[in-house]
Amino acid sequence: MKFDNLLRQIKFIKEIDKLKYIQRKTKLFNSNRHENDAEHCWHLAMMAIVLLEHANERIDLLKVLKMVLIHDVVEIDAGDTFIYDTTRSHANTEEEMKAAKRIFGLLPAKQAEDLNAIWQEFEEGKTNEAKFAKAMDRFEPLLQNSSNNGGTWTEFNVEYDIVYGKKKVIKEGSNSIWTYAEGLINESVEKGILKN
Amino acid sequence: MKFDNLLRQIKFIKEIDKLKYIQRKTKLFNSNRHENDAEHCWHLAMMAIVLLEHANERIDLLKVLKMVLIHDVVEIDAGDTFIYDTTRSHANTEEEMKAAKRIFGLLPAKQAEDLNAIWQEFEEGKTNEAKFAKAMDRFEPLLQNSSNNGGTWTEFNVEYDIVYGKKKVIKEGSNSIWTYAEGLINESVEKGILKN
Repeated sequence: MKFDNLLRQIKFIKEIDKLKYIQRKTKLFNSNRHENDAEHCWHLAMMAIVLLEHANERIDLLKVLKMVLIHDVVEIDAGDTFIYDTTRSHANTEEEMKAAKRIFGLLPAKQAEDLNAIWQEFEEGKTNEAKFAKAMDRFEPLLQNSSNNGGTWTEFNVEYDIVYGKKKVIKEGSNSIWTYAEGLINESVEKGILKN
Repeated sequence: MKFDNLLRQIKFIKEIDKLKYIQRKTKLFNSNRHENDAEHCWHLAMMAIVLLEHANERIDLLKVLKMVLIHDVVEIDAGDTFIYDTTRSHANTEEEMKAAKRIFGLLPAKQAEDLNAIWQEFEEGKTNEAKFAKAMDRFEPLLQNSSNNGGTWTEFNVEYDIVYGKKKVIKEGSNSIWTYAEGLINESVEKGILKN
């Protein structure tokens, strides 16, 4: 049984290597090189570890880490959804649900169920852990774009109102990070790297 | 105070982006593309999550995740040490200690101390968490090399005895993963992708 589990787990471990090939629209700090999903997930995990004290509520860091580490696994099948793409739904799409079922389904049944539930919880964004995890997910590209002369805002002509609306969910996870983020957005307008 | 902490934490978050540029000798699964440190750390974290049941002892997964996520941060200053490089020491070098001090030192003092201690614990490899984390660190490139027609074993002419010796520490973290790993090493010899 245990050895059977191991074989399934190794299949999963090999499959998720594909996340390293999925390019995001955002770029590394002060760089022209696109970030990939695996790097992004690692960075969010590091952010969650060091920013924990700013969470609005007491949260379970282990759960947050699992959330951010696995949150993009579905993109192996469903591809990256760009946050400012208005032609695609940003809800938990059917395509993503199918992807979660297939990819987590490589694991032993109970484990597949657990990880699927954690991914769903992240997607729904209702629990304190999901709110903080989502705050990390929105905060990282804000830091990147502001260090990259506007980054995707400039590249895709995204305006202040849209950015502000998307980033405001940071507040649900952390008031203090949101205060900083809001300042960064305003500063970006002043610098002319975000259009008002 | 809290805002002061946040500014230091953001400095750290920006600094560690550099891990995405540090190339390892090993390559992605079935690929010719080198893995970078950020991808590697993410993959080890995912492995720790799904392979937890195989740990020899009951372990604190949160601590293991912190270990694998931060274990290569020192390489920003000290560079990647290739495991089969016989010209360099693999102990916690002075260069790495200095790097840990500088990079974790960007964080608020208490946090810097905590992460430094976790990194030291990993390096020393004595606790159950460190043993399991190290098992992940040795197991991933074994999976990669065996899927890459020998990978770094072939590229750098590394022989069975050396590989076996380096990989045997997996057993300290997990007997069942070691059983699988040992099989994989023997199979690699039979396939001719690892020289005896």
